[in-house]
Amino acid sequence: MFLHNRKMMYTVQVDQPNPAFAKMLLEQFGGPNGELGAAMRYFTQGWNEPDGPRRSMLLDIATEELSHLEMVAQTLAMLMKGSPSQLVDQVEGNYLGDLLDGNMPDYVNMSLNSGENVLGGGGPRLTDSMGAPWTAAYVDTIGQPEADLRSDIAAEARAKITYERLIKLTDDAGCKDTLNFLMTREVAHQKMFEAALDAITNNFPPGTLPGDEKLGHAYIADSGAFGAAGDDTAIDGFEFAQANSAWGFDLDTDPVGHASDQEVKPPPVEAANA
Amino acid sequence: MFLHNRKMMYTVQVDQPNPAFAKMLLEQFGGPNGELGAAMRYFTQGWNEPDGPRRSMLLDIATEELSHLEMVAQTLAMLMKGSPSQLVDQVEGNYLGDLLDGNMPDYVNMSLNSGENVLGGGGPRLTDSMGAPWTAAYVDTIGQPEADLRSDIAAEARAKITYERLIKLTDDAGCKDTLNFLMTREVAHQKMFEAALDAITNNFPPGTLPGDEKLGHAYIADSGAFGAAGDDTAIDGFEFAQANSAWGFDLDTDPVGHASDQEVKPPPVEAANA
Amino acid sequence: MFLHNRKMMYTVQVDQPNPAFAKMLLEQFGGPNGELGAAMRYFTQGWNEPDGPRRSMLLDIATEELSHLEMVAQTLAMLMKGSPSQLVDQVEGNYLGDLLDGNMPDYVNMSLNSGENVLGGGGPRLTDSMGAPWTAAYVDTIGQPEADLRSDIAAEARAKITYERLIKLTDDAGCKDTLNFLMTREVAHQKMFEAALDAITNNFPPGTLPGDEKLGHAYIADSGAFGAAGDDTAIDGFEFAQANSAWGFDLDTDPVGHASDQEVKPPPVEAANA
Amino acid sequence: MFLHNRKMMYTVQVDQPNPAFAKMLLEQFGGPNGELGAAMRYFTQGWNEPDGPRRSMLLDIATEELSHLEMVAQTLAMLMKGSPSQLVDQVEGNYLGDLLDGNMPDYVNMSLNSGENVLGGGGPRLTDSMGAPWTAAYVDTIGQPEADLRSDIAAEARAKITYERLIKLTDDAGCKDTLNFLMTREVAHQKMFEAALDAITNNFPPGTLPGDEKLGHAYIADSGAFGAAGDDTAIDGFEFAQANSAWGFDLDTDPVGHASDQEVKPPPVEAANA
Amino acid sequence: MFLHNRKMMYTVQVDQPNPAFAKMLLEQFGGPNGELGAAMRYFTQGWNEPDGPRRSMLLDIATEELSHLEMVAQTLAMLMKGSPSQLVDQVEGNYLGDLLDGNMPDYVNMSLNSGENVLGGGGPRLTDSMGAPWTAAYVDTIGQPEADLRSDIAAEARAKITYERLIKLTDDAGCKDTLNFLMTREVAHQKMFEAALDAITNNFPPGTLPGDEKLGHAYIADSGAFGAAGDDTAIDGFEFAQANSAWGFDLDTDPVGHASDQEVKPPPVEAANA
Amino acid sequence: MFLHNRKMMYTVQVDQPNPAFAKMLLEQFGGPNGELGAAMRYFTQGWNEPDGPRRSMLLDIATEELSHLEMVAQTLAMLMKGSPSQLVDQVEGNYLGDLLDGNMPDYVNMSLNSGENVLGGGGPRLTDSMGAPWTAAYVDTIGQPEADLRSDIAAEARAKITYERLIKLTDDAGCKDTLNFLMTREVAHQKMFEAALDAITNNFPPGTLPGDEKLGHAYIADSGAFGAAGDDTAIDGFEFAQANSAWGFDLDTDPVGHASDQEVKPPPVEAANA
Repeated sequence: MFLHNRKMMYTVQVDQPNPAFAKMLLEQFGGPNGELGAAMRYFTQGWNEPDGPRRSMLLDIATEELSHLEMVAQTLAMLMKGSPSQLVDQVEGNYLGDLLDGNMPDYVNMSLNSGENVLGGGGPRLTDSMGAPWTAAYVDTIGQPEADLRSDIAAEARAKITYERLIKLTDDAGCKDTLNFLMTREVAHQKMFEAALDAITNNFPPGTLPGDEKLGHAYIADSGAFGAAGDDTAIDGFEFAQANSAWGFDLDTDPVGHASDQEVKPPPVEAANA
Repeated sequence: MFLHNRKMMYTVQVDQPNPAFAKMLLEQFGGPNGELGAAMRYFTQGWNEPDGPRRSMLLDIATEELSHLEMVAQTLAMLMKGSPSQLVDQVEGNYLGDLLDGNMPDYVNMSLNSGENVLGGGGPRLTDSMGAPWTAAYVDTIGQPEADLRSDIAAEARAKITYERLIKLTDDAGCKDTLNFLMTREVAHQKMFEAALDAITNNFPPGTLPGDEKLGHAYIADSGAFGAAGDDTAIDGFEFAQANSAWGFDLDTDPVGHASDQEVKPPPVEAANA
Repeated sequence: MFLHNRKMMYTVQVDQPNPAFAKMLLEQFGGPNGELGAAMRYFTQGWNEPDGPRRSMLLDIATEELSHLEMVAQTLAMLMKGSPSQLVDQVEGNYLGDLLDGNMPDYVNMSLNSGENVLGGGGPRLTDSMGAPWTAAYVDTIGQPEADLRSDIAAEARAKITYERLIKLTDDAGCKDTLNFLMTREVAHQKMFEAALDAITNNFPPGTLPGDEKLGHAYIADSGAFGAAGDDTAIDGFEFAQANSAWGFDLDTDPVGHASDQEVKPPPVEAANA
Repeated sequence: MFLHNRKMMYTVQVDQPNPAFAKMLLEQFGGPNGELGAAMRYFTQGWNEPDGPRRSMLLDIATEELSHLEMVAQTLAMLMKGSPSQLVDQVEGNYLGDLLDGNMPDYVNMSLNSGENVLGGGGPRLTDSMGAPWTAAYVDTIGQPEADLRSDIAAEARAKITYERLIKLTDDAGCKDTLNFLMTREVAHQKMFEAALDAITNNFPPGTLPGDEKLGHAYIADSGAFGAAGDDTAIDGFEFAQANSAWGFDLDTDPVGHASDQEVKPPPVEAANA
Repeated sequence: MFLHNRKMMYTVQVDQPNPAFAKMLLEQFGGPNGELGAAMRYFTQGWNEPDGPRRSMLLDIATEELSHLEMVAQTLAMLMKGSPSQLVDQVEGNYLGDLLDGNMPDYVNMSLNSGENVLGGGGPRLTDSMGAPWTAAYVDTIGQPEADLRSDIAAEARAKITYERLIKLTDDAGCKDTLNFLMTREVAHQKMFEAALDAITNNFPPGTLPGDEKLGHAYIADSGAFGAAGDDTAIDGFEFAQANSAWGFDLDTDPVGHASDQEVKPPPVEAANA
Repeated sequence: MFLHNRKMMYTVQVDQPNPAFAKMLLEQFGGPNGELGAAMRYFTQGWNEPDGPRRSMLLDIATEELSHLEMVAQTLAMLMKGSPSQLVDQVEGNYLGDLLDGNMPDYVNMSLNSGENVLGGGGPRLTDSMGAPWTAAYVDTIGQPEADLRSDIAAEARAKITYERLIKLTDDAGCKDTLNFLMTREVAHQKMFEAALDAITNNFPPGTLPGDEKLGHAYIADSGAFGAAGDDTAIDGFEFAQANSAWGFDLDTDPVGHASDQEVKPPPVEAANA
């Protein structure tokens, strides 16, 4: 079960209100790589996980992501208009009045944030920075640890980069500090998931079916100079993969050749007007 | 640019029509880990990729995923009712007539597949196995190679497991062979993406900002016996992560302690009825 | 910030696995009136709420809804196949093998649950009972307390009814006990939100603009015998509203009359082919 | 069945074209609290309602909401570029030419409205103000009157506030008059739904199952100083609820205590690498 | 503005309740080619249409589609369980009791309809037959008559076929009669839209820009025997198009040749690890 | 199967980077009438098509649409910031640095493009111009050629208009040339689909059921002066349809009359509080 402590996990600072930056920060509230998605990814894994230590780690991290979600919400509220209370005073007394009276650089900011302003009363909404509502389609849990842990590693990497980009987009020292905390924790989580994946011996390929040995090693060159005369002098992806893997890829430059013995049943012409 | 060869990439075989299995196979046509999502993930990465060999590899693999999508479409059409031509004859002559006349085990199968039957004329639709339409929310490309390649590795692992589960759900030898080909290629792709990630020196953490050294190594125990008296004898996620990583985690059992010097501004009570 | 205690908020009991009922119960995991939606509704309100006691109550309830979400997840895992560990053993060893071997009443059950089985590895997914992914479109927070509290009262009423229907659909005594706990708590929450709305003096109409006095009291009869000769002997909604309200409605049986002095500019014919 | 009278329900006035405001007004055309959602909420209730007067009232109001939808469409067309005919003349002759020629304050307006301009030909589209398409996920009908009427009351309150915010965002007298009509009608509808709820004796709790008496009255304090030493001096949601309700809440400050006799089956460690 | 007459546009008959068929019929309530989509397509066109007769026709048809939506709702309610009143009596007294008691053919029917039953109280919900919520993404209005009328013709053709398939899926004489009415009206509407398109002289190509004469007539053979040696003996789409059009297509069998003078800037290798 | 040639189908030119125009061009990448939707519409039809020449033509066109998708991706990358490589150098070195340093006209541009910048790393994302993710709800394939070909004709018309609007919104000569190529090809495709529809004898009405002769010819005037006294002098849609069709419509000015013999069962009043 869950408990809530009234303090933030880390002190949230915002030096200056900035609705335009708030709009971008929504990415980490209700966006694909944001904190709600992170929490739900790890909870759905943890609640279905029979392995004790792995379940324990998943629930530790999922719980922390909820605390991150709360921090982003607080940051958003402060970016929209100082403290939430000041915002609501204005909102319901004379909604967005001082924006129109010129306390904002220009009229544009208002329009840019209409979603938050018209719908949210100045509070955070569960959308990405373009206003698309959060969807569980972002949660890629499939209930198999060797695959799920790789999804977790990737998700933390994407979250880290998103925070990094946001940090580079603002000059607000308070904001930078807050976002730096959040970004750093994603780095730590990525490492924990890598440790958990390492703990599974023989984790490649994931699952139990081995697949077809020969096809598994083929590098099939589907992109080249097909349909044109002359040599293909393109830079080669095969050499790139081959040079960086102990796997031993075989180059297959005749992708259509696989189908040479194939009989594709001709569709019956007489059915054309059916 | 793209060219289409009229042969399949690999011969598609289906021994017996089976609408119920077709419904499940939709997962790999228009589902989150299916072939359209794979193709779009790698194309959006490749078309924005300045590095030659990496772009080359991404476009090779993306093109192959399109050929997979076509194979799944062919499998679906055959599972629904033998060859597509036979299906359409029936569909427009006496729609689903023989299903109702008893050639299908029971009436249930029809109902289970209403999406394909009513909407698709017996052909494949871009939904998952539950009928949810494919959405670009499944494509997690963010345009940063160190993160995107990790997303690719995870996506291939998920696709491998999904094919594995589908293989285990059918006794149809033809289907098993077709799905085994597709599953195996996902294994090969996963390895190629791992090679491409290895080719980037110092790929952890992704991006350029280092984050906060101390916070990055903390294992914060947010899940335990909080709110209750007595000892916490739970299995420990920290020991699990610590044992399987060279990273050097620090255990933090006082998560609230981070906030000890925090002053959360009390919200003004007088605004309650605003 | 959030903490997680490893015990459930209330003991979850399931006497018999039942995948078909699990499919229906998904409604309260990732459905429109389910626990994720409840938690997110109250968090987005609480994090933007300046009034102390109201914020406190919103965060108390939101936190409890997360504990409910965990309970539903546990119920789902047990309904799918006993304890999660037994399920995963099977899943990755011989996926759904015993379902096909006849431990399930019939083949139908498997097909009905393909979403959970194929995609989720037997674990809960954030969809409704028909497989539609959870979307933030379900969260109707608008950041104005007089409206939001009414939304909360309505949401709890819907959640109560959904649990009631689920209870009536199962004979499993353990399940009934678990769902009865969850249903009862929604009743308690509804009452708390009603108390919070009562605490706002003059909460009708919500907001600060009074509107037009005359129009506000008109009952406009838009549904009747329009377009047909003869008397309208229909049962009257006006009398119904009038009898049950101290408001004083005026009946308006000539809805088109409002527009009598209206000049709708005729569209220019010459632009037809533009 | 439905009939359409060519006059508007109330004269729509717009003094000055204003694409930026049109973008915000989309909220009430295809947004969550807009007129399409309102019409569909009441129609789906009315078409399934056996009680005569209630059905009559629901269909009266639903029909009026359609007339509102038409009024918002007309307002949008006029805000985008005067009369619709003038707009289309320009659109297909020299699309948005005068915007680029400087008749608009700045280039920004065009970009802000690209959805309407590029996709809609200057006409209204069924999206919210951020471009998210209308979805039936907004319709919270569940087919139980005691819950549905509460949803209706809440929906009208949200719609009222949204119109109020839009009125405060514009200086256009014609627009204000039009929006004031629409806002006022939502107030009237809210009162009608309150009357209909009052007409149901013993409407709390909704439905027929009573729930557990003791749990139903418990106020569980899940948010506090958990995980930290020292006193919890926080503002108390319990006192707030207690003071404003005749219900008689019991304070429960030991939320974890509920679970004291709970045996959570430990997950089997040996399955870790499965 | 709109008015509602309490009679149906055409008498709705259902001889026998049939929840499984109700599930399929949802396709025309909240599905992509259903009545809500039709009404919204024509309303959004009509409300933005300056041409008088065209606007008049669009609003005539759009209004009729709303009456169709009501008829489908009534059919759904009767298919779910006789008259709506009987349904609700049961639902709230002993929810779906007689389904479980064996009045339904088998247990399966209940599961198949869980969306309607659990969420809708036996009433129609705005989803397609697979439970995907209606979305405005189905409405393809773009505000240009020559394109929109073609979209309308296509939409009516799709709706006609969907009704035809549903008619073939049921033996219920009442249902067949009701659906035959609805299907026939779509045929009539298709013809009206064709008349409206014919009324626009020179309606091809739509819009005002002529395009490039030479490219506009080229048939480019992108699908063939590319990548393989030997002759391409495939059936020819070019001959098919050529034989059935007065347009005069030019066959282009060298699709890559277009790009022969193209210099694709090589991506800089040195940025690989950026 | 598919092959990829490294050249573009047509040389993509962009004279000046222009993020604001890139935002609008997204419409044709991941928007409803964009190239992904086109490719998927024709592939899903072609893969289920038994008629040889029609299948051949569908796959030719579908393949070309993929090449268009690639061209739009390249245009987007160049509009965002010259060549992709220059963009990525900046992105990961000092993300969007020169935007903030004033190389862009104003700060607004950055905010307007936050979706592409924050999420996409300067690369194209599969959304429309407002940020709504691409959804398979855009694909209207139903597996019946007479309906599907009409959908294809309409889709090409919409795509042509969208390109036309985009061409009129830019002064960039390179961009105009690229978009003119894409627009022209949609014109050619529309003509091919018209030829394919003409090749089906007796293609109206689509399908095999004839419908009811009398109802099929009725023009029902649902929009007029209903509910008001006096004459209806409105412009007549019936005359418009009649004048432009050889069909022979019958005018029906008494739409409610159809229901004259209808007995709508009165809902039982006694169930009001159920």
